[in-house]
Amino acid sequence: MVSRSPLAPSRFAKLPEVPGVRIGTRSCGLNNFGRDDVMMVEFNSGTAVAGVMTRSLTAAAPVEWCRGALPKGRARALVVNSGNANAFTGKAGTKSVERSVTAAAKLVRCEHHEVFVASTGVIGEPLADDKITEAMADLYGSLAPNSWDQAAKSIMTTDTFSKSATCTAKIGDTEIIINGIAKGSGMIAPNMATMLAFVFTNAALSATVLQPLLEDANRRSFNSITVDGDTSTNDTVLVFATGKARHNEIVSHHDAALAEFRTALNWIMVDLAKQIVRDGEGASKFVTIAVTGADSEHAARIIGLAVANSPLVKTAIAGEDANWGRIVMAVGKAGEHIDRDRIKITIGGHTITQDGQVRPGFDETPVTEHMKGQEISIDIDVGVGRGHWTVWTCDLTHGYIDINADYRS
Amino acid sequence: MVSRSPLAPSRFAKLPEVPGVRIGTRSCGLNNFGRDDVMMVEFNSGTAVAGVMTRSLTAAAPVEWCRGALPKGRARALVVNSGNANAFTGKAGTKSVERSVTAAAKLVRCEHHEVFVASTGVIGEPLADDKITEAMADLYGSLAPNSWDQAAKSIMTTDTFSKSATCTAKIGDTEIIINGIAKGSGMIAPNMATMLAFVFTNAALSATVLQPLLEDANRRSFNSITVDGDTSTNDTVLVFATGKARHNEIVSHHDAALAEFRTALNWIMVDLAKQIVRDGEGASKFVTIAVTGADSEHAARIIGLAVANSPLVKTAIAGEDANWGRIVMAVGKAGEHIDRDRIKITIGGHTITQDGQVRPGFDETPVTEHMKGQEISIDIDVGVGRGHWTVWTCDLTHGYIDINADYRS
Repeated sequence: MVSRSPLAPSRFAKLPEVPGVRIGTRSCGLNNFGRDDVMMVEFNSGTAVAGVMTRSLTAAAPVEWCRGALPKGRARALVVNSGNANAFTGKAGTKSVERSVTAAAKLVRCEHHEVFVASTGVIGEPLADDKITEAMADLYGSLAPNSWDQAAKSIMTTDTFSKSATCTAKIGDTEIIINGIAKGSGMIAPNMATMLAFVFTNAALSATVLQPLLEDANRRSFNSITVDGDTSTNDTVLVFATGKARHNEIVSHHDAALAEFRTALNWIMVDLAKQIVRDGEGASKFVTIAVTGADSEHAARIIGLAVANSPLVKTAIAGEDANWGRIVMAVGKAGEHIDRDRIKITIGGHTITQDGQVRPGFDETPVTEHMKGQEISIDIDVGVGRGHWTVWTCDLTHGYIDINADYRS
Repeated sequence: MVSRSPLAPSRFAKLPEVPGVRIGTRSCGLNNFGRDDVMMVEFNSGTAVAGVMTRSLTAAAPVEWCRGALPKGRARALVVNSGNANAFTGKAGTKSVERSVTAAAKLVRCEHHEVFVASTGVIGEPLADDKITEAMADLYGSLAPNSWDQAAKSIMTTDTFSKSATCTAKIGDTEIIINGIAKGSGMIAPNMATMLAFVFTNAALSATVLQPLLEDANRRSFNSITVDGDTSTNDTVLVFATGKARHNEIVSHHDAALAEFRTALNWIMVDLAKQIVRDGEGASKFVTIAVTGADSEHAARIIGLAVANSPLVKTAIAGEDANWGRIVMAVGKAGEHIDRDRIKITIGGHTITQDGQVRPGFDETPVTEHMKGQEISIDIDVGVGRGHWTVWTCDLTHGYIDINADYRS
């Protein structure tokens, strides 16, 4: 086993109960980590759900199930397993999902499309769904409103720490709770392939209000991090709103009363996303890349991700080398509009280049000092507009090779 | 220094003279490898030139020069230096190019736009062009028709072996010579950023005939290899045709008389491209990925490159693990049309999956044996059409991290 990431947060959030949410976990023998590997969540009736799924064209069976169920916008149960991704398992994989969903719907007494599922683990091996369905009645009997720690742990695969976050926000005068849990050693294709994140709130929001809020927050969080640029077959982000809170009705995601909730949802998801980067496979440094001066937010994000995904930039950071030439290279390959002769690169607050070349008399000493730390900041202004965006990544180290060259053996 | 790549060819081509081409090299103190670092080539008058350059938006000054000169289609001189990329050097970089071009044009007595230049090495440091121009008169006096070995060595940076290829082809009844030299430890952003390739022939072809032939061959060769997916600021491929051979006039690149020449040009460029992969930073295995059953050649190439660029696939290969689940993942992220449930993956000639899942009773033993070799073959049929393409890459090893985390220090 790999020891806990050196970038792990020093403190873990203590998650409060969310009215309308009951949780339980079980060990069904699907993973070989000796941890609980199945999580079940029940929601009170009236719970709305929104979601974003992987864009992979080899998406796993549970992803396809969720895609089919999301348009109905209602949720009563969530069943997640670790240890097996149920991906590239053909028709057998679809049948596995159907049997798990049927079992959960029977226990919760709900429609099939009100049951959501997610899997993470090895690709291409049939899922022993009988182990899940056999344990489910007992598991269902044990659901409790405060099993957040166990839940966050049960969805882990090669994660070296469990990931959770919580905060509150007001809608009108009503205080709303938002909890989130996540797993992944990379947004995109960690060792066992997949990031999963589940957000739970007692807000009373319909799926049509929730979906655009989720999509915007997702862009700013899970779609703004990268470990290795690979895309999982199983990536899933779901947000459940139980509606237990008593606030004025919200009919549009543009409603001004949502300002604080929107900020809180963004914060939770960015916090979970950063935790995933901090658990990036082999990561020794947490890197924040802020791009300014782009044509648009979209362009700034593409440029930021090009830098964040560059193996040459990531290995330079691992080597504590302020190799800004590689940053220039990565900006150039992004394909977005830039002015080569106005690029300004700042590392650790020290401006290195301006007007498309290194500053006269530039002293690298303080930058080199910054590179020795665990938290690296890179600011890039590309000199053409007002678009800006921030992305997060980690370095590329021998640890990544160790983990990924040895995984199945 | 890194020792010679274990994947280096066991024999090196002996390049013959190409009528109309004279070559020389000098050590001007630009690199710190103790090798010659400037190459000069003179062409007889009437030489045509075609070229493809990096698509980077932070392209280096010499790339911009060549882009400006190529439309005229005529070449009399080529000046290449290693050790310094003259990239991200602002207006000073442009001036450096102009001074080198002026010096060469004066010696060769030609127009400025008949002089081509290329640089490879460190990004962001001013090029000491005075060292080049001061040595140029003496270098010019030493040009000879048979200095191919020295030429191939002088353009190396972190390459562990020099790269060259030669062959002949008939146009009509006339035998044509084609020589090529290249450098790079990756098409795309090796350590010192850049692949360069220069092809020389005595064929009598105009730039308008040569350019489409080059672009097609480039797609099949240098644009079908990858080491790490990064894109250099300086990538340059130029082909020079001296016109010394006496064959019938060719007015179109569709001319049937070009069939053999086209095949030969493709072969030279694919051979040089494969040599670059064999010198990929830290490479321990040479990987051929053949994609079939795609919607088009373009789609097959995109899918092949997605697999070839996947850090998870590349680390699995380094670990000698036939982790076909990661291949499925990479096919899915490519974004091209595929049928998940018809994907067929074959490694080392052994079919692993069919109909979107692992074959019943599949025995991994012979595949594991294949993975232990130096030459890995992966065939992927995506089950929707007749488009096919082959790409080449290498594995991702600790050696890559060693080379790139330590480079500037």
